[in-house]
Amino acid sequence: MTTIKDSVHDYIELCPMAEALLDTEPMQRLRYVRQLSTVQLVYPSANHTRFEHSLGVYHLASRAVDHLDLEDDLAARLRAAALVHDAGHGPFGHQTERAIERHLGRHHDEIEWLLEETDLGTVLEEQGVDPDAVAATVDGRGPLGELVSGGLDVDRMDYLVRDAHHTGVPYGTIDHARLIRAFQVVDGDLVIADGNVATAESALIARTLMNATVYRHHVSRIAGAMLDRASERLLDDGVVAPERFARLTDEELLAALSDHEPTADLADRLRNRRLYKRALWARRGAVPDEFVAIDYDRTRDLEREIASAAGVDPASVILDSPGDPSSPESRARVVVDGEPQRLADRSPLVAGLDACAREIWRLGVYAPPAHLESVREAAATVLEIEADPAP
Amino acid sequence: MTTIKDSVHDYIELCPMAEALLDTEPMQRLRYVRQLSTVQLVYPSANHTRFEHSLGVYHLASRAVDHLDLEDDLAARLRAAALVHDAGHGPFGHQTERAIERHLGRHHDEIEWLLEETDLGTVLEEQGVDPDAVAATVDGRGPLGELVSGGLDVDRMDYLVRDAHHTGVPYGTIDHARLIRAFQVVDGDLVIADGNVATAESALIARTLMNATVYRHHVSRIAGAMLDRASERLLDDGVVAPERFARLTDEELLAALSDHEPTADLADRLRNRRLYKRALWARRGAVPDEFVAIDYDRTRDLEREIASAAGVDPASVILDSPGDPSSPESRARVVVDGEPQRLADRSPLVAGLDACAREIWRLGVYAPPAHLESVREAAATVLEIEADPAP
Amino acid sequence: MTTIKDSVHDYIELCPMAEALLDTEPMQRLRYVRQLSTVQLVYPSANHTRFEHSLGVYHLASRAVDHLDLEDDLAARLRAAALVHDAGHGPFGHQTERAIERHLGRHHDEIEWLLEETDLGTVLEEQGVDPDAVAATVDGRGPLGELVSGGLDVDRMDYLVRDAHHTGVPYGTIDHARLIRAFQVVDGDLVIADGNVATAESALIARTLMNATVYRHHVSRIAGAMLDRASERLLDDGVVAPERFARLTDEELLAALSDHEPTADLADRLRNRRLYKRALWARRGAVPDEFVAIDYDRTRDLEREIASAAGVDPASVILDSPGDPSSPESRARVVVDGEPQRLADRSPLVAGLDACAREIWRLGVYAPPAHLESVREAAATVLEIEADPAP
Amino acid sequence: MTTIKDSVHDYIELCPMAEALLDTEPMQRLRYVRQLSTVQLVYPSANHTRFEHSLGVYHLASRAVDHLDLEDDLAARLRAAALVHDAGHGPFGHQTERAIERHLGRHHDEIEWLLEETDLGTVLEEQGVDPDAVAATVDGRGPLGELVSGGLDVDRMDYLVRDAHHTGVPYGTIDHARLIRAFQVVDGDLVIADGNVATAESALIARTLMNATVYRHHVSRIAGAMLDRASERLLDDGVVAPERFARLTDEELLAALSDHEPTADLADRLRNRRLYKRALWARRGAVPDEFVAIDYDRTRDLEREIASAAGVDPASVILDSPGDPSSPESRARVVVDGEPQRLADRSPLVAGLDACAREIWRLGVYAPPAHLESVREAAATVLEIEADPAP
Repeated sequence: MTTIKDSVHDYIELCPMAEALLDTEPMQRLRYVRQLSTVQLVYPSANHTRFEHSLGVYHLASRAVDHLDLEDDLAARLRAAALVHDAGHGPFGHQTERAIERHLGRHHDEIEWLLEETDLGTVLEEQGVDPDAVAATVDGRGPLGELVSGGLDVDRMDYLVRDAHHTGVPYGTIDHARLIRAFQVVDGDLVIADGNVATAESALIARTLMNATVYRHHVSRIAGAMLDRASERLLDDGVVAPERFARLTDEELLAALSDHEPTADLADRLRNRRLYKRALWARRGAVPDEFVAIDYDRTRDLEREIASAAGVDPASVILDSPGDPSSPESRARVVVDGEPQRLADRSPLVAGLDACAREIWRLGVYAPPAHLESVREAAATVLEIEADPAP
Repeated sequence: MTTIKDSVHDYIELCPMAEALLDTEPMQRLRYVRQLSTVQLVYPSANHTRFEHSLGVYHLASRAVDHLDLEDDLAARLRAAALVHDAGHGPFGHQTERAIERHLGRHHDEIEWLLEETDLGTVLEEQGVDPDAVAATVDGRGPLGELVSGGLDVDRMDYLVRDAHHTGVPYGTIDHARLIRAFQVVDGDLVIADGNVATAESALIARTLMNATVYRHHVSRIAGAMLDRASERLLDDGVVAPERFARLTDEELLAALSDHEPTADLADRLRNRRLYKRALWARRGAVPDEFVAIDYDRTRDLEREIASAAGVDPASVILDSPGDPSSPESRARVVVDGEPQRLADRSPLVAGLDACAREIWRLGVYAPPAHLESVREAAATVLEIEADPAP
Repeated sequence: MTTIKDSVHDYIELCPMAEALLDTEPMQRLRYVRQLSTVQLVYPSANHTRFEHSLGVYHLASRAVDHLDLEDDLAARLRAAALVHDAGHGPFGHQTERAIERHLGRHHDEIEWLLEETDLGTVLEEQGVDPDAVAATVDGRGPLGELVSGGLDVDRMDYLVRDAHHTGVPYGTIDHARLIRAFQVVDGDLVIADGNVATAESALIARTLMNATVYRHHVSRIAGAMLDRASERLLDDGVVAPERFARLTDEELLAALSDHEPTADLADRLRNRRLYKRALWARRGAVPDEFVAIDYDRTRDLEREIASAAGVDPASVILDSPGDPSSPESRARVVVDGEPQRLADRSPLVAGLDACAREIWRLGVYAPPAHLESVREAAATVLEIEADPAP
Repeated sequence: MTTIKDSVHDYIELCPMAEALLDTEPMQRLRYVRQLSTVQLVYPSANHTRFEHSLGVYHLASRAVDHLDLEDDLAARLRAAALVHDAGHGPFGHQTERAIERHLGRHHDEIEWLLEETDLGTVLEEQGVDPDAVAATVDGRGPLGELVSGGLDVDRMDYLVRDAHHTGVPYGTIDHARLIRAFQVVDGDLVIADGNVATAESALIARTLMNATVYRHHVSRIAGAMLDRASERLLDDGVVAPERFARLTDEELLAALSDHEPTADLADRLRNRRLYKRALWARRGAVPDEFVAIDYDRTRDLEREIASAAGVDPASVILDSPGDPSSPESRARVVVDGEPQRLADRSPLVAGLDACAREIWRLGVYAPPAHLESVREAAATVLEIEADPAP
C-alpha cells in the first residue's frame, strides 16, 4: 500500500483504486484549486487545496467503512466517491458556483459528465466500480450516501479540522475520530450511536463558529463577490466558454480576467488585495424581505440603480445578499434512548445555533474606496435601509 | 527575568514577585493537587496540576494587564491574584469543597486566612502588594477583579485549553489570545470589545462541551462522590482536623483514608479504580423537585432510607444530586454597536447552552456492583422515580 | 472494544487482555508514579505518569504487531509485555533504581517476581498468555523481544513524543508512525526497512537532545541525587523493608521520608523545591578516571571525606558521578542496500551523537546553599579537580 | 496595531511600516509563490507560500529586536529586511534560481533593483527606512545582518517550523522561542548565549533531517530539474524576457511553459504529476569528481551525449548533479565558557551532520518511464559509473 503524509491525518494509506484515481487529470487539477478560495486574503496561511482535502475525506471514509465493516463493493464505492467528491468544483470553488450554475445549469455535486468526459470514469470502470453509483453517492444518494454528503459527513469532518489547522483558528477542532467510531447503520441509514449528542453538536458548533470567523469573513465575501461579478462578465462576453471556465484553476481564472480589458481592473484588485470596501453592511432585521436572497437579474438591476443614483460606473457597485443560512447538520440522526432521532429534535443547541447563523447574516454593498460615501447613500435609499449602516 | 517552559503557553516569563510567590509552601503544595482530580480515572493523561495551571493563569493575566496598559500597582495585584488564585483549594479541588465548607465554613476563593497564616502574605508584603487587595481580587471583588474571577476570566481561559491539551479532548481549544486582545476597560469594568461575540460565545461553548465529555463524566462523578463521602466520615470521626484536612495533597488524603478502617475500603476502591456503579441515573424531568440539590443531612437520611429498603449497609449507597447548572460566562459583558451588554442578552446561543447544561444534568445513585439491583429498586421507590433508570 | 482517549495517540483500543491487565494492582499503581520523576521541578507540566505511558507503549506495540502480521500467540505476548513493561519500577522510576538494586538485587526489567506475587501473573494465565514469556520479553529476550526492549523499541518511541508533549520541549517529536511502518522481520530479527536511515537517526537525535535539555537537566539530577541519598538512609535504617519500598508510589515515598527524622529535611527540601545547589560541576576531561562512575561505598566515603574537609555534616554533601553514556539506538539494525546492518555502522551521525553525550556529561557535587563555598573547595581538593568549577 | 492570524505563530502584530510594505505588488505576488515549490507533489499539504513565510520571518525578527532592545532605526531596518527578504525570488523559488542567475546574473538575495523599480523602495523611504540598508541586510551585510541572513537567522527558524507544520513531517520543530531569547550582541556580532549549544545544534539537526526527508526528496528534485530544463528552454527561445521571467508566479510559469510547444510536454508532466523517473541514482563515492557540481554547458553536453548513446531525444535526458552540501549553521557563533566560538568548533555533532549531508548526496539522471533502461545504460557509460545504479 502506498502511504501519503498529510499535515492533518499523518499517514494516509491509499488502496490501488485511489492511486489510480489520483493520477487522473480531474484529481491533479485540484492541486491548483484552493480549499478556501479568497480566505487567504484574510488568513494568509489558508492556502491548502482541494487535493489534500480530497485525500483527507478519502481517509476518513476508509476509516468509516472499516469501522462499519461494509461489504467490499459498497466500501469501494464510498471510498471512490469520497476521493472524487470535489472534482466537479470550478475555480475558486463555491465562489464561482453561481456563475457556473447560471451558465451551465450544473451544480458541483453533479459529476456524471466528468465521469463520462474525462479519464475518471474509465479508471473507475477499470477498478470495477460503477461510475453512476459513484456519481449518485457524491450527490448524497444511494446506500449510505449520507456518509459522503449528508448532515455529518466525512467531507465536513475533514474540512473543519483542516481549515482550523491552516487558518490557525481553533474552532474547527472536532473529535472526528470519535464521530467515526460512533457511526452505526440502522435500517440502512447512517446514524450516530447513543451517548454522542455532544459529539454531534460539536460539529455543528464548529461550523457555526468557523462561519462567523472564517467562511463568512467580510473580506473574503467582498473578494468572492468581486470574483463572481468578474466571472459573469467574462462568461457573458464569451471570452471563455462555460465548459472551459468550469475546468480552470484559480490562477488560470485570474489570468483570464487579467487578459480581458473589462475585467482586468477587478483581477488586479484581487491579485494585489486592493479590494472594494463595505459601503453598506446591514443585519437581517434592517433589510426588507424583498432584498434578501435575490436572483441574478434583480441583483444586476439593483446595482445599476444604485450606481445611477450614486453617479458612478455600474462596475463600481456590488450587491451581495446571501440566502438564509441552512444547517444540514441538524438533519443528522443520533440514537437517543435506543431510537434514531433528528439531531434538531434532541439538541437544545440547534435552535440557538440557527439563531446565531441568522445573527451573523449581513447584506453587503461594496464599492471602491473612492466611491464609498456616494454608494452608501444611494444604496440605503434604493434598498430602503434606514439607519447608518457603516461598518 | 526567569522563564519557565510550559506545555500550553510555551515560555512563561516570571517577574520577581512571581518567583518569590512560587517559592512559598502554599504554591509548592499545588504541585501535588491534580487540576482535574479524579478525571484521570477516565482520561488517563489528565494528570496536570493546579501548580502549572496557576502559572498559566498568571501568564494570561500578565498578557492582559500589558494589553490594557494598567498602572503598576493594579497590574501587580492582578498578577499576584492570578498566580495564587487556587492556593485555597483542598485536596482533589472541587471534590472536597463541600466537605470543607461544611466543616470549616470556608470556600476555596476565600484566602484571607492563607495570607495570614502562611508565608504567602509575608512575601506579598515584601513585594509591596497588599494581601487584602489580592484576597479580594481572588474572590472577584475590587478593581478589575473579574479578570481573575468573572464571566470570562483568565482562570477559565487557561483551564479550557490546558484540560484539552492533557485529556486529548479537543473542545477546549478556545482562542485565548484573541480574547485577551479583545479586553477593554469601560467605566472601570472589564468588557469584550466590539466584533467579538463569537469569540466570547466560543468560551461558553467550550465549557459546555467539556462539561458534557470531561468535567461531568459519570465515572469522575462517582469517584468524586465516593471521595466526598469518605472525607465526611474522616472529618466526622475526628481523624484529621478540618484545618489540616484542607491543606492535604491528593495522595495524602488517600493515605489518610487508607489508614482509617471505616474509610479504607473506599480508599482502596478509588486507588485501584474498583468504583461503585450507577444504580440509578435520572434526567432532570424524572426527578421530583424536592430531590434536586438537596443538603448534606437530607442526603445522608435518604441514603440510609434507601440502604434500609435495599437491605444493605448504608456505606453501600451514595446519592449524588447536583444543583442546577450555572453559566457565569453569560454575565460577561461584550460591546455590541458601541454599548457594553451582557453576553446573555446579545447571544442567541446562551439560552441553547443553558438548555444543554440542563439536558446533561443527572441524579445518580451509586452502589458497589454486587448490590446494584437491590439499591436500584429501593432508590427508585424512595426517590419516586418511575421509569427504568438503568444507564 | 474499549477505547481510551490519550493526549498523545488520541484513541487507544484495548483488547480484553489489556483491559483485564489494567485492572490489576501493579498497573493501577503506575497512576501514581510520574514518568519523569523530579523533572516536574524544572518543567512544571511534566506530570504525566507511567500509567498513561504504558497505555501508549501498548498502543504502539499493537500497531506494530498488526503491521508485521504476527501470529496470535506472539502478538498477544508482545502486547502484554508492552503494557506491563514498567510495572517493576519503584517510586520515582529510575531515581530509586540504584537503591533498589543494592538492597534487593533486582532491576526494574526483571518482573518475574511481580508476575508470581501479584494478580498480574494470574490474569495473564487466565488470558492464555505465558507469564514467563512475558517477563522475558520485558527484558528484551525471546522472539522479537527487541520490539519492547531494544535499540528502537516502542517504549522509546512513546516516551520521546509523550515527554515532548508534556514538557513543551519540541525535540522528542519523532515520526513514530513511520518507524512502525518501517519495521520488518528478517531471519527472526526486527529491523528497519531500507530507505529509513534518517528515520532511525531521528530517534537517536531526539533522545540526545532530550537528554541535554530534559532528562539530564541539572536541577532534576540534583533532586534525584537527594532522593537517592534519602532512600538509602531509609533502607539502611530499616524503616521500610526493601520489598515494600520497591512498591511505594512517589508520594508514599515522600511521606515515608518526611516521617523519618534523619530524612525529613531532605523530604521537605524536595517537596518545597528548596534544593541543594551545584558546588562543583565538572566536565569529563577535568575529572580523573578513578572518580568516574564510582560505586556506592566509594561515593559515600568520598562524600564523608569532602564533608570532613569542608567542616560540614556528611548529609550536606552529595556526590553524583554518572557512568559513561550509552547509546542503545546505535545497535538497532537498519536495512541498507538490502542488507541489515547496525545503525552505528551506517550512520555518520552516531559517532557525533556519542560525542555529544560525552560533551554533556558532568560530575556534580551538591550542597545546601549555605555551604556551597566550603564544599566546593573541599571537593575540588579531594577529587583533584583544578579549575574553578562553579557553574 | 493590525494583527494577522498565522497557522504557526498565532497572532502576528504588524507595525505601520509592515502594513504599508505588505500592500506593495512585490509582496502580494508572494501569495502565488509556494514556499516549497514542487515539494507539494510529494507532500500534498505543502502549499504554504512565501507570503505567509515572510510574515513569520518578520514576526520572529520583531521578537528578536525587542529582546535585544535595539535602537529604533536599526530595529526598523531589520524588521523591513525580514519582511521583504524573499521578494527577489523567481517563480518556484530555488528551482528557477540557476536559470535566473544565468540569464540575469542576479541572485535572489540581491534586491537593490526591486527596491528601485517597484513601489517597495518608495514605501520604505516614506517610512523613513533606507532602501539600500535594507537591501544590504537581506544579503546578510551591515549591522546584525546575520539576524536575517546568517547561520542561525530568523528566516531559517521560520521555515523549519512552518515546513514541518505544513508537510506533517515532525523534524522541523525547533525551539525558536528559546533561540530568540538566547540571542545576544557581543562586539556588534549576533551570538547565541551560553548554555545553548544543544539549542543551536537542534536547528542544524532539523535542517539535516528535513533535507533528507523533504527538501531533497527525489521526486521534488526530479520535478525541479524538469522545471529548470524547461525554464532554460523558454528563456533561450526568447519567449519570455529574463526580467519578466523572474517576476512570474508559479502558475504563470506553468502557463507560459504550456503555451510554448517545445516545453508543453514538460509543463503537462509537471501539472499532472507524470514525472520522469530515476534512470541513475548514484552516491558521491561512485561518481568521478569531474561529474560533480558541473556547470550549465557541460551538463547540457553530457545530456546530449547520453541521449545520443541511448538513441533518444535530448529532451528525454536530464542530468542533475548538485554541488557539495554546505552547512551555514556551523558558522553560527555560540558563547561557551564566556567566549563566542563557531558552533562547528564546539559541537561534536557538526562533523557528523556534514557527513550525513554527504551521505544523502546523489547524482541523478532522469528520463521518461519509457526510456529508463536505455538511458540508464548510456548514462552509466558516459559518466563512468559502474555498479547497477537502479534505485
